[in-house]
Amino acid sequence: MSVKTRVYEGKAKILYTTDDPEILLAEFKDDATAFNAQKRGSIEKKGVINCSISSQIFQQLEAHGIRTHYIDTPAPDQMRVKALKILPLEVVVRNIAAGSLCQQTGLALGTVLKKPLVEFYYKNDQLGDPLLTSDRLFLLELATPEQVDTIAHLALQINKSLCDFFGRCDITLVDFKLEFGLDAQQQLLLADEISPDTSRLWDNSKQSDPNLRVLDKDRFRRDLGNVENAYQEVLQRVLKAIESSN
Amino acid sequence: MSVKTRVYEGKAKILYTTDDPEILLAEFKDDATAFNAQKRGSIEKKGVINCSISSQIFQQLEAHGIRTHYIDTPAPDQMRVKALKILPLEVVVRNIAAGSLCQQTGLALGTVLKKPLVEFYYKNDQLGDPLLTSDRLFLLELATPEQVDTIAHLALQINKSLCDFFGRCDITLVDFKLEFGLDAQQQLLLADEISPDTSRLWDNSKQSDPNLRVLDKDRFRRDLGNVENAYQEVLQRVLKAIESSN
Ligand SMILES: Nc1ncnc2c1ncn2[C@@H]1O[C@H](COP(=O)(O)OP(=O)(O)O)[C@@H](O)[C@H]1O
Ligand SMILES: Nc1ncnc2c1ncn2[C@@H]1O[C@H](COP(=O)(O)OP(=O)(O)O)[C@@H](O)[C@H]1O
Ligand SMILES: [Mg+2]
Ligand SMILES: [Mg+2]
Repeated sequence: MSVKTRVYEGKAKILYTTDDPEILLAEFKDDATAFNAQKRGSIEKKGVINCSISSQIFQQLEAHGIRTHYIDTPAPDQMRVKALKILPLEVVVRNIAAGSLCQQTGLALGTVLKKPLVEFYYKNDQLGDPLLTSDRLFLLELATPEQVDTIAHLALQINKSLCDFFGRCDITLVDFKLEFGLDAQQQLLLADEISPDTSRLWDNSKQSDPNLRVLDKDRFRRDLGNVENAYQEVLQRVLKAIESSN
Repeated sequence: MSVKTRVYEGKAKILYTTDDPEILLAEFKDDATAFNAQKRGSIEKKGVINCSISSQIFQQLEAHGIRTHYIDTPAPDQMRVKALKILPLEVVVRNIAAGSLCQQTGLALGTVLKKPLVEFYYKNDQLGDPLLTSDRLFLLELATPEQVDTIAHLALQINKSLCDFFGRCDITLVDFKLEFGLDAQQQLLLADEISPDTSRLWDNSKQSDPNLRVLDKDRFRRDLGNVENAYQEVLQRVLKAIESSN
């Protein structure tokens, strides 16, 4: 294998080229950041855990007909993915009010939404990933109306599939962030990662305790402690759910 | 006349009851606030100036078939208005990028928008008047879909009328904020005020200088000086434009 070249180092992953120009290698890091990288730290084994969770989830989604960038995992913290042109959008699906939705609407944390909310944010660290209205999204030409329609539809499909899957892990999927990209044929694929870094996951057996139930990056954001344990716990449950479904 | 009772004191106006329960008296104050009232000050004669500008503009709009809450001006800083149930929305129309639109999209100050942008913000001081997506607006039940449609349509009509009017004042209407309310018959009326406090107005004869051209509250926000002069200048031009059209 030839020497790999670093294409991009992000907050959670490093992307490398491979022999095949249509394939990238994503290396998952233990680095953790929050609040637009104002808070920085590290979560032990996060790279391996998030790579494992993500790869399991991508395979689940593929089995349900959702096209993703996932190829395989040549090492525990490495994922081979299709090289895509990522749309500069963070697509957030919310089932329960939490985080910025609460801050910006006054909705109480934990409010169950009548129907899932699909929201678009401008993936732009300098601007702090601001919320987009449709008008702003189109004004900035971040995607075409057809792409937005397709993404919104896919996001809801993915949400259904993931709610069901995490339900089997005895976990409530509160919200999560998706990224999409275009391949050489302009096909829209699900990209990036789906992990406790990019979702809110609440332990059903501890629903009554707003701190104990948290199995995601909010433990790091809010200094709740036991961050590694929570991530590890999610991975164990994901693996068990997949095992018992085979 | 009976003793008037203070109904509400806001940042820029005090509302009083009148003998007629369907009529309120709005007294315009010299107080000035910015950045969600974190910056406070006072602009000499602002009460009288904004009351005059607003009443002239409401009369212009009425003449163009837009229904407003305006009744009359019993004193230079007082406006009698129809008592309305105000929708908790700040409706912003933008012709040129400025302010939070620039901060949140990266668009350069002064970018002329291909078409006017109508945006909805949650009128909620505690939350800092956050931007709303349609989904959030309906989730919070701040207005019905029919009301939103009507408001968006009215906002664009008002924009056309105001762009034309300020054009005759040799002023460019960059953006402005509207509030709407429902009367006892559930009719939607334009309410509140339209003034240099609630709009961005650029002097056409000084377009090349990004500070000199400013004839609105940005002089106060950005400490550009000559705030009173700018407000006074807008009033003079408004009165002259109306005089020459009669
Ligand atoms: N299949 C892919 N092809 C190209 N880029 C991708 C792919 N999947 C994810 N990326 C991008 O990889 C980058 C690295 O990930 P990450 O460390 O999470 O970065 P960031 O700090 O921008 O969130 C992200 O910008 C993400 O959009
Ligand atoms: N016709 C009306 N009927 C009832 N309330 C009104 C009417 N027009 C404006 N208002 C309300 O009067 C209040 C006082 O104005 P202002 O000082 O600008 O308050 P604020 O600090 O809330 O912006 C505002 O909350 C505004 O919504
Ligand atoms: Mg990322
Ligand atoms: Mg006001």
